[in-house]
Formats: sequence, structure tokens, C-alpha cells
Amino acid sequence: MSSLREECGVFGIFGHNNAANLTYLGLYALQHRGQESAGIAISDGTDLSVLKDLGMVNQIFDAETLYSMKGDRSIGHVRYSTTGSNTVANAQPLVVSYSKGKLALSHNGNLVNADELRRRLESSGSTFQTTTDSEVIANLIARLGRNSIREALVECVKSLKGAYSIVILTENELIGLRDPHGIRPLCLGSLDGSYVLASETCALDTIGATFIRDVRPGEIVSISKKGLESVLTPPGKRASCIFEFIYFARPDSRIDGKNVHMVRSEFGRQLSKEHGVKADIVIPIPDSGISAAIGYYLESGIEYGEGFMKNRYVGRTFIQPRQKDRDFGISLKLNPLREVIEGKSVVCIDDSIVRGTTMKKIVSKLKKAGAREVHVRITSPPYKYACFYGIDTPNSKKLIARI
Amino acid sequence: MSSLREECGVFGIFGHNNAANLTYLGLYALQHRGQESAGIAISDGTDLSVLKDLGMVNQIFDAETLYSMKGDRSIGHVRYSTTGSNTVANAQPLVVSYSKGKLALSHNGNLVNADELRRRLESSGSTFQTTTDSEVIANLIARLGRNSIREALVECVKSLKGAYSIVILTENELIGLRDPHGIRPLCLGSLDGSYVLASETCALDTIGATFIRDVRPGEIVSISKKGLESVLTPPGKRASCIFEFIYFARPDSRIDGKNVHMVRSEFGRQLSKEHGVKADIVIPIPDSGISAAIGYYLESGIEYGEGFMKNRYVGRTFIQPRQKDRDFGISLKLNPLREVIEGKSVVCIDDSIVRGTTMKKIVSKLKKAGAREVHVRITSPPYKYACFYGIDTPNSKKLIARI
Amino acid sequence: MSSLREECGVFGIFGHNNAANLTYLGLYALQHRGQESAGIAISDGTDLSVLKDLGMVNQIFDAETLYSMKGDRSIGHVRYSTTGSNTVANAQPLVVSYSKGKLALSHNGNLVNADELRRRLESSGSTFQTTTDSEVIANLIARLGRNSIREALVECVKSLKGAYSIVILTENELIGLRDPHGIRPLCLGSLDGSYVLASETCALDTIGATFIRDVRPGEIVSISKKGLESVLTPPGKRASCIFEFIYFARPDSRIDGKNVHMVRSEFGRQLSKEHGVKADIVIPIPDSGISAAIGYYLESGIEYGEGFMKNRYVGRTFIQPRQKDRDFGISLKLNPLREVIEGKSVVCIDDSIVRGTTMKKIVSKLKKAGAREVHVRITSPPYKYACFYGIDTPNSKKLIARI
Amino acid sequence: MSSLREECGVFGIFGHNNAANLTYLGLYALQHRGQESAGIAISDGTDLSVLKDLGMVNQIFDAETLYSMKGDRSIGHVRYSTTGSNTVANAQPLVVSYSKGKLALSHNGNLVNADELRRRLESSGSTFQTTTDSEVIANLIARLGRNSIREALVECVKSLKGAYSIVILTENELIGLRDPHGIRPLCLGSLDGSYVLASETCALDTIGATFIRDVRPGEIVSISKKGLESVLTPPGKRASCIFEFIYFARPDSRIDGKNVHMVRSEFGRQLSKEHGVKADIVIPIPDSGISAAIGYYLESGIEYGEGFMKNRYVGRTFIQPRQKDRDFGISLKLNPLREVIEGKSVVCIDDSIVRGTTMKKIVSKLKKAGAREVHVRITSPPYKYACFYGIDTPNSKKLIARI
Repeated sequence: MSSLREECGVFGIFGHNNAANLTYLGLYALQHRGQESAGIAISDGTDLSVLKDLGMVNQIFDAETLYSMKGDRSIGHVRYSTTGSNTVANAQPLVVSYSKGKLALSHNGNLVNADELRRRLESSGSTFQTTTDSEVIANLIARLGRNSIREALVECVKSLKGAYSIVILTENELIGLRDPHGIRPLCLGSLDGSYVLASETCALDTIGATFIRDVRPGEIVSISKKGLESVLTPPGKRASCIFEFIYFARPDSRIDGKNVHMVRSEFGRQLSKEHGVKADIVIPIPDSGISAAIGYYLESGIEYGEGFMKNRYVGRTFIQPRQKDRDFGISLKLNPLREVIEGKSVVCIDDSIVRGTTMKKIVSKLKKAGAREVHVRITSPPYKYACFYGIDTPNSKKLIARI
Repeated sequence: MSSLREECGVFGIFGHNNAANLTYLGLYALQHRGQESAGIAISDGTDLSVLKDLGMVNQIFDAETLYSMKGDRSIGHVRYSTTGSNTVANAQPLVVSYSKGKLALSHNGNLVNADELRRRLESSGSTFQTTTDSEVIANLIARLGRNSIREALVECVKSLKGAYSIVILTENELIGLRDPHGIRPLCLGSLDGSYVLASETCALDTIGATFIRDVRPGEIVSISKKGLESVLTPPGKRASCIFEFIYFARPDSRIDGKNVHMVRSEFGRQLSKEHGVKADIVIPIPDSGISAAIGYYLESGIEYGEGFMKNRYVGRTFIQPRQKDRDFGISLKLNPLREVIEGKSVVCIDDSIVRGTTMKKIVSKLKKAGAREVHVRITSPPYKYACFYGIDTPNSKKLIARI
Repeated sequence: MSSLREECGVFGIFGHNNAANLTYLGLYALQHRGQESAGIAISDGTDLSVLKDLGMVNQIFDAETLYSMKGDRSIGHVRYSTTGSNTVANAQPLVVSYSKGKLALSHNGNLVNADELRRRLESSGSTFQTTTDSEVIANLIARLGRNSIREALVECVKSLKGAYSIVILTENELIGLRDPHGIRPLCLGSLDGSYVLASETCALDTIGATFIRDVRPGEIVSISKKGLESVLTPPGKRASCIFEFIYFARPDSRIDGKNVHMVRSEFGRQLSKEHGVKADIVIPIPDSGISAAIGYYLESGIEYGEGFMKNRYVGRTFIQPRQKDRDFGISLKLNPLREVIEGKSVVCIDDSIVRGTTMKKIVSKLKKAGAREVHVRITSPPYKYACFYGIDTPNSKKLIARI
Repeated sequence: MSSLREECGVFGIFGHNNAANLTYLGLYALQHRGQESAGIAISDGTDLSVLKDLGMVNQIFDAETLYSMKGDRSIGHVRYSTTGSNTVANAQPLVVSYSKGKLALSHNGNLVNADELRRRLESSGSTFQTTTDSEVIANLIARLGRNSIREALVECVKSLKGAYSIVILTENELIGLRDPHGIRPLCLGSLDGSYVLASETCALDTIGATFIRDVRPGEIVSISKKGLESVLTPPGKRASCIFEFIYFARPDSRIDGKNVHMVRSEFGRQLSKEHGVKADIVIPIPDSGISAAIGYYLESGIEYGEGFMKNRYVGRTFIQPRQKDRDFGISLKLNPLREVIEGKSVVCIDDSIVRGTTMKKIVSKLKKAGAREVHVRITSPPYKYACFYGIDTPNSKKLIARI
């Protein structure tokens, strides 16, 4: 139910004769990480091309376009715009040509020092056509101009500050790079002898790939015809984004060794231990509260139920008609099930609370549907500060945990 | 998880100065009943116009088009094509002009004798531009040519055989009609002094309307400036479509006095009584198995869990890429949660089973994810015969319950 | 330069294995007769389907759609909307099913008694989904219900009043019909043993067909596997639309035995004889004044020149930006060639003059470009009365010839 | 009738509160110079934005988008792709941010040393996202990094080799630049106290602007709030593109002091002097042969006529259906007027002849239409060598003048 929004999902595969189709399916499995634009870059070892557009994966690609994308190595991207407005120019993968050939780049995360790097590059003659971090990184690589892109990346890591899980494709190489803190997830798998990189393991599962391991914080994995090579840059302070576990990632994904659903369920159990209550029923705010609500029910022994029905057709283009005297608001998304709630003391579990305005309406809806008592439990720790690593957050003064 | 597909949702409102917006929201709440086309017809008492197209409600209508639709009475329709292919010509509401003026018609259901009626009308000079039942009904009304459309409908009901929940809009009147068996749902509500008709009560809830009652089998309700009038044609044998309760309707809707979620939950309880089993966990096939799985858990006391993650981005335009050696099939929709299932004896609840091919794959997935035992429980009674009232069913010889 | 607008072009072919492609090219040659919508109906002898949309021929059809249109008989239509607004529903060919099967109909012209026929049909139970004359004609045919469509048409002609050149396609037959006055053109040709019908001979030339003859006023030609049969209904008073020769038709077409360019050129010669003047140069208003200007020059011996350049990219979607203090008006379409005009006495030839507002601006432009004298000559006779046969004319009180 | 294709048109205006609308109209007047993509960049002095897409001016911009483009300075571009394939990425104006702010650039012409410049820039760290010359020029400007863009351009001119008429917009300045040879046209005008730059004077006429003068070869004109400043870089050898006069430019434009129509007419007169013939009629191949045919008629005294009708609806999306046994070829574009040609000795005037295949078909068509003799006269000098300055030419071995 959170109003937080994640920014991106990345995917890459090297050495599979079905590369475009598998990237399509991989992106489709990562669609929850971004619905604003999507793209696939592909290479057959000689040329490198890209197709990207605004919209969701299945709106941009069809059987015909996928069939036309020839090559055994490709990367993809789904995007929710954090930096840079939502325009085709800002869609990824970004493809540039530079002194060593062509380079496609997909980025998940947010650089803290993007503006500074940009100004530095501009002052020595670089130009920029988008407002994305990806273009800053690509230009940095081009400027470092080392013998190999891997060498350039080792150097690059010294300049980049912030969260970045990146996949890069050149004509000869697929590279995966995770920032020294390991803020955003990136994992490695294999399928039919080819290597696969993905933001989440659910993408590996969807295409039938086998999980190998997470890419390590600060690690650069390079996949080419010679196989996989790894370079470890000095790791930073370990600093996962907690919202991957609380809200962004799919429950069936495993991140850094932990299944997301089980983590959320454990959060629910812990909530019950720390903030137990005598009640008749535990209900989640769908969908992100479900895992935690199950944990709460398992720990507390209070009956589990579904107290809200969610309309699954709310999409990017849904408009909420203006009406003078009525705010349809939350009613369009959630409808309470009176038969489940009426006369009961309800524990309502959600993943996080930002400004609190939505939760206020939810409690009011539960009361109207006949709830005797409503106990709200939130799995996230108090959300008190704005995030600089890529999560779209409101002004920190509006955060209810600070008021 | 059923491969059955429902055909339509209908909505109507009379006497509200926000008619177009409310019909848009009503259709949006009924979107689960049909995603192939949608339309809204509106009248200001003098003229009557329609906007309809292929696609979902929020793809067809935007703030600008809704703003341009002036009038205080309108009807709408969402469609999954059963009879008639999916073309714009077949989208509804159908608007025709005839001797008494203009008439817009939205239909949910299937006539059993549509071809016979069509031939009869053609033999006396009628022409048809679509392959829908709606056009047959509209022409029948025009032919009966009574003083009022209500009189024509009373006559009409004698000819129509099959399932039909219909809303009709003329310049002066909103009419709701439900077949004498009451096969498809249709309910009546009120909002700000205006009357509302809808396939399901969830549409009333979404717009904030108050539920009055279900339209009765064989009833013709007519709403005009004079208020609501009801004509009862002779009722037939009561014959609800069981799939409304099992699968089609939204769990938060009430049909003929019963909440869908509670009915499904009760099905689950009954399943536990009739086919109990010693097991470690009860899991639903999302989403249609959830309510029954909760009932099963409540009755049996076996732990409830979510064993599958569903990809919610599968839409009409999603293509499954061809690949020689691999059938992605169910993997694209459902991913098992190994951490929930491994080493356990699992009761897996689904709403229905048609040919059994999907369930076979689901059981296999659960086994691969480490389930020790898998017990399948289906809420629907054995599905043995093809349906002639509007459900898209396979050849009855392929129904697993008959093999 | 006329603001008059023609309504439609029709085309048909029977017995050619390249029917869809040839109809496409035929319509493309008739595109000047209507740019608002276009469509092709095709049959392989068993089924009959249609593809039509708003836009020009090359916007609606591409290689893929044409390839998918199988059959050896088809009809087509290009439309500028006179009656009926410009909606997809009103696009033609109209396809209806009736007691004898399916029927596709393309109509050029305007019925004078369409409303009366419509009311008569409605009063006995017909319904209408469009506002076109074509639907009235199709319903009339269905009502007459004779053994053959040809018999029904013979009867039909007794009821229809006005201008109509019609092509009809059933699964087995292509029919062409021209009203008893012969107001709109319709000609017959042959290609590779198949028969072709078209509004103008330029469509025959474009596909390489041989002209056979014009369809006669009141004639019904029916083409089937048995060959061509002709029925002559009683002819009416001969009454060609003079605007076909003056403005609508392409100069390279021959209508009722006369080449349009030569007729226009003759008009120009006659103008010179009747309204000669001593001048330095004769210039046309492009494009419709060119043929007459050449005739004027040939007769008078005054030098011919091109005094205006026309912007050929003005299309349906061109918008004229609003600006407070300036009316771009005619400047966007026509730019005078100062070098040709300066210091000269100019004879300026146009095809017709309706309200005179445009001509006023043209004369002013010529003066500004340095013309010493401007003599306007119009080939059309004084345009004094509104047209009831399908030409979009302003209120007759605004016609300059009446003031 | 030439198969040569021009590449681009550019437009700019500074200091007019109607800048977006006027740029739209200016581009519309230049549409003949490129129909593949179009774009407008605009600035209000603080920010600078761009809207561009594939298609023609009136397909890309509508009243709403133009209204949303706020600012009093803007540049525009219409494009036919010579270098760089026809993709949105390659559409212009190109907008980049660099050390001095933002810069929009529209280019007409072709650099001879683009690849060399590109490699040089890449070797010092530049990246490229398109395959256009414009991106090379923009990066060169960014690299030169002088205090002002004008200073950078003075330096830039030393590196650029080839044809280039460029307009550049920054937040504060509109700049026009024409290569030292003056190969492509660029003119300067004024409207309501604002300055205007355009590829051809017809754009000035269309918006009602007053022609001031042509931009000089090698001249950089810079327009800002301080007014107009001019810098003259060393001029090169004067080398106009003859095809501007023969074929590309609109007849009503004046280029470097000469009206295009009059130049073409003079070409026709000269042809008559050099290659006179006794004949009955002079006809042009429309549209590019018209001016010359008039000159030929005036000089020779042979009667002028229109012997071909041109279909004006051939556009970018027109497809020529495949047919085994027939090449519709030229028939789709041109239809001879038998009544004008039959029995006559015809002089047929065209602007240029490239491979001669089209002319062969034209002569054959004239013969079939009854011409007694056909005399072909071409205004262009023998076309013997490929062009490196931006004209799309076939392999020089296929040029008929070399055979």
C-alpha cells in the first residue's frame, strides 16, 4: 500500500541463442520494479542495437519485434523514473558509441554525486542528451578510456557515489556491477550453459535458470566467450536498502541469501512479539502486507482473513475523475469485506507508513464496515528521513514518523 | 486459475449530473468481467451518443473524453467476447435508432436461440451489422414496436431464451432486465437521489452508492423522471450460474443476497468436512482459490500460507515467446515459494478444474519445490458439460471430470 | 480553389486473383474524391469481410493487411462526409447480413428522400446504426426481399430519389448502379478478363484496365461467374453534375465520353471568346484552374504563366495556429511569384466562385506582388442555388452570384 | 520527377511571442525539403525544450502541443535522412547540455569529414548516441569550450568540411551559420521586430516576414537581445548546389538573389536555344519540369500544354502492392492525357535525368498515348558524378550520363 516507488529492474544474458525472448521474459518477471518504460539491447557480436519505449514490457515488444532482434547476448531494463522525467530519451538501456565501439547500459539505483560528475565531464567537453545517471556513467567510462571496459570500470567505481546495480553490454562482453555497499540487488544465474544477470531471482525462476550466487558488493563480473571473470573492488560499508525486503522486491525472490516472503513473514512474527494485541482477526493491506500478516497470524494465533478486496486494474493511465463533492480516493483501489470485518476487533498489517493519509482512510473504511476495534501494525521501522539512493520520497517534514 | 472466461459487465445510472464519470468508475470496478472492449452511452434527454473501443476502460477513456460526455443518464459495458469476434463493431453499448428514437443496449449473457431469432428477423427484412446477441435483441424490440419500450420488452421476454442481464438507455429512460431464471447477476442501488444498475455490488461500493436490492429474475425495472417502475414477467426455474460464485464475480460483491467471498470460504469449509486430510499447510492457487483456502484453513485448523507468487502483469497483449525445447507455460504466471513449501504436506485449493492440464503442472511445480505430499481440493462440483449460457468452455470430451 | 467538396469515390472488381491490391490502387487513384475515410470489402465466394477506417487509403492499408484480404472480388470506397458525420461507423463499404446472405455497399451521391425512406423503414421495424444513405439503401434492399438482389434493385430504384452511383458486392455478384439522371459518374472496364467498376476512368488507367463504357443512367450492371448482365430501368431527365467537369473529377478522367481536361480547356477558350481582355499574362489558380487557363491562353494568344506556388502539404490534420493580429489564411496555401506578375496586366482563372471571400484575398495578393491590373475569369456559370445532390454548399444567401 | 532527394530544411526565430506557431508555419512551408521527421526546439530564456518525431509537420504538432511550447525564440527542422537512418533518435533539432548550458542545433547539409571528426572526438572521450552530423558538430562546439558559442563556431568552421547551413539556439542566442562555399541556402528576414532565419524565402513569405538578405558564405549571424551581430570567417570557393535551383527549392523562393522559378524558366529558354526542335506541343513532367517547360514554350513559341496528370497523394507510407506479372511503376504517379498528346510531336521537359529508367517509361507512355514524336529535354547539365554534400545519389556507374 506504500506510496514509495522503486526505480528499475535490470537483466542480462550472454551466450544463449534465444537471448531476446529470454530478456523479454526476464523483464516481464521484473515488471513490478518499473512500469514507465522498458527496453532491450542486443548484439550478435558485430553490431549492437536497442529497442525501447514508454510503457510496459508487453506493450513495447511483440512476437514480430522480438523475432527481429538477432543475437546471443542482450540486456534489458524496466524503469520507474526517479531522476529524469519520463520521456523516451530517458528510457534505457542507453546505447552510446565511443572509442572502443558500442556500449549499452542499464542502471538501477541513484548516484549521489551525479551532478558533480556531470559538471566535471562537461567542463572538459562532454555533452549530455538525457538527465539520467546512466549517461553520466557511460561518459565516465568513455573518458577513462582504458584498454578494457573492465579496467575503466575499476577506475569508475572510485568516482561513483551512491547506489548502482548496473549491467553493461558491448559487442563482446556482458558486465554486471554492484556498488561497494550492495544497496540494490543483483544476482547471477545460468541457463543452458549461458550466464544470466538479474535484479531479482524471480527473473531466473521465470526463465528456468539456475541461481548461482548474488553479485558481491563492489564486484565487477565480466562474461565473455572466455567465460566469467570477477574483479572485486574494495567493498564499502554494507548498506542494503531495507525497502527491497519490506516493499519493492517480489516475495518469491531471494536477495543476498534471504527469501523476501520469509523475511516479511518474520517481520510480522516480530511485530506480534513486540506489539501483540488481543483481537479477532488479522488482515493485510494487499498486496504488500500479506506476508507480514501471515507471520503475525502464525505467531499470535489470531485468525487470518482477507478484509480488503483490491482492484487490480489500476494502471498508469487510470484517471480519477474530478467531482466537486466527493473524493473517491482509496475506494477505487480497496473495498472492505463487511462480512469478514463486522463486529470484530481487527489487526491491520501494512508494510510501511509514509505520510499516514492513506492509513487514516483505511481505518475509517474498516470502522464503517463495522469493525469494533482497529489495530494498525507496520512492518517497516519508523520512516524518518528522505532517501538519497533512488527512492521517491516526500519532503521529510511530511513523514508521519517525524511528526 | 480457471481457464473459463466470463463475458461481460453492465452498468447504468439515471439522474446524476456526474453520469459519465460514475459510469467510468462503475465499469472500472467491473473490469474483471471483461477486458477486451468497453463503452459508455450517454444522453442529456435530447440526444444519445456512444464512445466505445477495444481495450480496457482506462485505455479508452481519459479526462478529456469523459468531460465531453454531457448528460445525466448513461449506461456502460465491459466485454470479453463469447459470441462474436473481438472487433470494434461488436463492442457495446450498441446504439440504434428506430421508430421511437434512439436506444443503447448493454448485454451480459448468451441467448440460446439467437440464431433462430436472427433468421426470423432477417426473413422479414432486418439487416445485421454485428454478430452479437445485443443486435438481435435491439431488432426484436424495434420489430415489436409497442407504444413503450417497456411493453416491447414484456413481449420480448417471451421470445428470448437463455441468459441475459441487460441495461437499456433511451433518451428518457433507463431500463434493467434480468432473464426469468436469474442466470446472470444484476443489482439496483442509489446515489445522491439517482438510480444505479450494475452487474455486481462492487460497482456500487466503488462509486459510493447504496445497495437497494437485486433485480429479480424476469423483472423489468424502468427508471425515468417519474421514478422507478417495475414489471414482473413470469419467472422461470431459478438457475443461477454457479461460476459467478466460484470464479467470475469479485469476492467483495454480494449476489442475490450472498457475499461471494463468504460463499467461497464456506465452499472451502465444506471441502474440509467432505475431503479432510492431515497436512502441514493449506495454500490457494491465487487469486480465485484464496477465499476457499481460508475457509479450508479455518475449518481444518491446518496452517494457512501463500505457496505461489502470481505475476500480475499478464495482460491481453502478453505474448509467450516460442522456444523449441521449453514450455514456459505456467512458470510465467506462478512461481512457487520453496521456503513455504519445502518438506511439507500441502493442501492446494483451486476454484475449478477444466481439462486438468494446468493442475498437473502445478502439482509438478510443488513437488519440485520440495513438497512432501500434495493434496488437491477443488471447490467447484465436477465440471462435466459444456455451458450454453455464455461461458467459453472447451469441447466437453476434454473435461477431466468426464474422463 | 473552390471550397466545394465532393463526397465519394467507388470502385469494384470481380474475378481477379489480385482483387484487394487492385482495389487499393483504384481507390488511391480516386483519393481526390474523398480523404476522410476509406475501406475495402472482399469476398472469396463464401465469406465477405471488410476493413475500413478514418484516413487516407495509404494510411489504412499496408502490405500486410492487403495480403491478408483473400478473394477475387472486392469493392472499395473513399469518402468525404456530406451526410453523416466523420466517424468510423459511417465509413464505407457498409456490410450487412440479411436474409440472402451478406451484402457490401459503397455509395457516391446523396438521396433527396433519405429521411422519408428511413422513417418508412423504421415504422415497420428497421433499426439504423449510422446516419448514411448507404444504410437506408441496404435496408430497402433487405426489405424488398426479392429472389435476386438485381430484382430488389429494380424495385429499389422506384423509391430512391437523388444522386447515386453505387457498387454492391455479395458473395457471388458485383453490381453497379447509376441513378436514372446519371448525376454521378460510374464507368466499366476490364482487366485480365475480369470486370472493373469505378467512379472515374483514371482508376482504370492506374491499374492498367481497359475502358469499356460508362454505366448508363438508370442501368444496373451485374457481374458474376456467368459474365455481365445489364438491366435498364426507365431513364430520368439527363442531369449531370456540372461540378464533376468543373472541379471534382481528375483532368485525366473521361466522363460520359468527354475528357475532363479538354472540357475545362474548352471552358477557358469560351471564356476568352465571351470575356476577352487585353492583358500580358494568363495565370491559373492551381490546381483546378490550370486546364481552363491553358484554354484561355490558347484562344486569346496571351502568354501563359504560373503566378502562384501552391503548398501541397495542406492536409486534413493541418492546423492554422491562432494569432491575434494576423490571418495567415490564403498565404499558407498560395504564394504569388512576384517575378512573374510584377508590372503586368494579369488574367486570373479559377474554376468557381462561391462566397467570393477567397478571391478577394487572391486579387489583393496579386496587387501586392505588383500586378498592374487583375482580371478575374471564372469557368463555372454563376453559382446561385444550394445543391441537394451531395455537394457541401453554404447557405445560398451567401453565394456571391446572388448578391 | 527526379529520384534525387534533398535532406533538410531549417528555421529559426528570435524575439517573437508567437515563436512556436511561426516556426510551425515556417517548417510547413519548408516541408518539401524533408518529410521523414520534424521538430521544434524552444526557449523562454531560462529553459530550452524540444519536441520532435517521425512524420510530417502537421502530423507531429497540433494546436495543443504548440500552445504548450512557451518562449519567444525557437528553431525547427524538417528532415529527409541522408546520413543516419530514419529513427526518432536521429530527428532534429538535436538538444544537448554542455558546459555553457543547453544548445539546440538544426543542420542542412553533409559533412565530408564527419567520420574523421567523430573518431577524433571519441579518442578523447566523447560518446555518440546518433549517427548524425549534427551530433558531431555539437560535440565539437562543446570541446572547443570557448567563452562564447560564437567564438567556438569561428574555431569550428576551421574543422568542418562540407555543406552546412545550421541554426543553433541557446537560452540566449539564435545563431545562423552557412559554410564558406555557400553550398546550401540560408536567408535572413524580419517580422514584427524579431529576426528570422530560414532555408528558403518561401518560409518568410508564408509567415509574412520581410526578406533582409541571404546569410553569406562563411558568415555567422548571432541574434540576441542586443540585436544582430555578424562574423565573417574566410570564405571558400563559391560552390552552390545546382540542384537547389534545378529541383529542390520551391519555385517561389529566391536563393542568393535569384528567383528559382525564373532561373528554371531561363534554363528552359536556353534549352530551346541550344536544342530547339520543330514540334506541336511542349509539356512538363510535373511538378519540377513546369517552370522550364514554360521557358521553353516562351522562347520557342511552341504551344504549352499539360500532358501528364500527377497523383498528389503518393506519400511516405504508400506501398506498391506486389504483383507477379505487372509493374505499376510510373503509372501510379503519372497518367498521360491522350487528348492532349495524340498525333502530336511532343517536347517533354524534365529537371534532371539520373539513371534514365523512369524517362524510358515516360517516353513509352507518351508513345502509347499516341504521340507521333517525343523529344526529351533536360534542364540539368549531364549528371556524371556522385555528390558528397548531402544528396542521395546512386552509384555513379549507373548514371546514364556516364554510360
